[in-house]
Amino acid sequence: MHGYTASKSDYVKRLARIEGQVRGLSRMVDDDKYCIDILTQVSAATKALQSVAVKLLEEHMAHCVAEAVAEGGDSVEIKVKEAADAIARLVRS
Amino acid sequence: MHGYTASKSDYVKRLARIEGQVRGLSRMVDDDKYCIDILTQVSAATKALQSVAVKLLEEHMAHCVAEAVAEGGDSVEIKVKEAADAIARLVRS
Amino acid sequence: MHGYTASKSDYVKRLARIEGQVRGLSRMVDDDKYCIDILTQVSAATKALQSVAVKLLEEHMAHCVAEAVAEGGDSVEIKVKEAADAIARLVRS
Amino acid sequence: MHGYTASKSDYVKRLARIEGQVRGLSRMVDDDKYCIDILTQVSAATKALQSVAVKLLEEHMAHCVAEAVAEGGDSVEIKVKEAADAIARLVRS
Repeated sequence: MHGYTASKSDYVKRLARIEGQVRGLSRMVDDDKYCIDILTQVSAATKALQSVAVKLLEEHMAHCVAEAVAEGGDSVEIKVKEAADAIARLVRS
Repeated sequence: MHGYTASKSDYVKRLARIEGQVRGLSRMVDDDKYCIDILTQVSAATKALQSVAVKLLEEHMAHCVAEAVAEGGDSVEIKVKEAADAIARLVRS
Repeated sequence: MHGYTASKSDYVKRLARIEGQVRGLSRMVDDDKYCIDILTQVSAATKALQSVAVKLLEEHMAHCVAEAVAEGGDSVEIKVKEAADAIARLVRS
Repeated sequence: MHGYTASKSDYVKRLARIEGQVRGLSRMVDDDKYCIDILTQVSAATKALQSVAVKLLEEHMAHCVAEAVAEGGDSVEIKVKEAADAIARLVRS
């Protein structure tokens, strides 16, 4: 059981849509579309991915971090550090 | 002819790889992988997309912006504004 | 008491350094430095700000979110949503 | 003469405002403000910095890159690569 388990099918749907967006990018390159229009679609796909990531983090905090707090001990610090590192990677990507 | 035309097959290959990364994300969710590991892969896919975007922009500047400069007139300002707007969208995504 | 209270003087020091970086940017513009060199310093200041933000979020999760979990009730969901919104703003800025 | 020379005083004003925002952040920490409110202000300062960067890039493309195109030779490729690297640093910060 993970934070995202309850909304698994929602994530799968969103990721399928992003996969389609990336396939669309490939088609745009192949069809010699204008670079700026391709860039607009790259930004849209990136935003969609980031938004999936923020949702995953939200459910992760609500479940896994909360669980760690309930358990107590070292696990809170470990889970929180792990989540902060994931946030840092997202912010920088 | 666009800035990216000469390296079209390279872009198609890179985008196919990113499409595979996004499909992999879907599989990770489906296989109940740990959220933090999914987030690491989201960051990797986002970075790969951004890197395609920066390459597209580089070739766009080298060709389309350069062409506009050669043509002269208003087209330089228009092309440059258009590129700056695309950069702003990327930075914010 | 906030998550960051224990390391308050560390934050004040980091922010003073960033303030100095921004003042340095102004001086670079005033001294007609090369645009690309100014941009490198803008990226450095942005990275330093983002890194302060990630640290604040880490301590916020470890204290405020943990406190909400201990209290129970609706407050966990509220705190987690609030943190996720802050992460979304950071990722997009 | 740089791309930004004509709007130098505008940049100095914007950077002074950002410097004030960062000083405000320090005051918020000192006054024990709520972490999420501090994070909102960090995002605002980051956005303001990024927006200065995009403007600098726009004027850099319109002047320095255009100049390189006019000069011809290797300088176009060098200037464009340099600008693309600056964009990559911005996107990742």
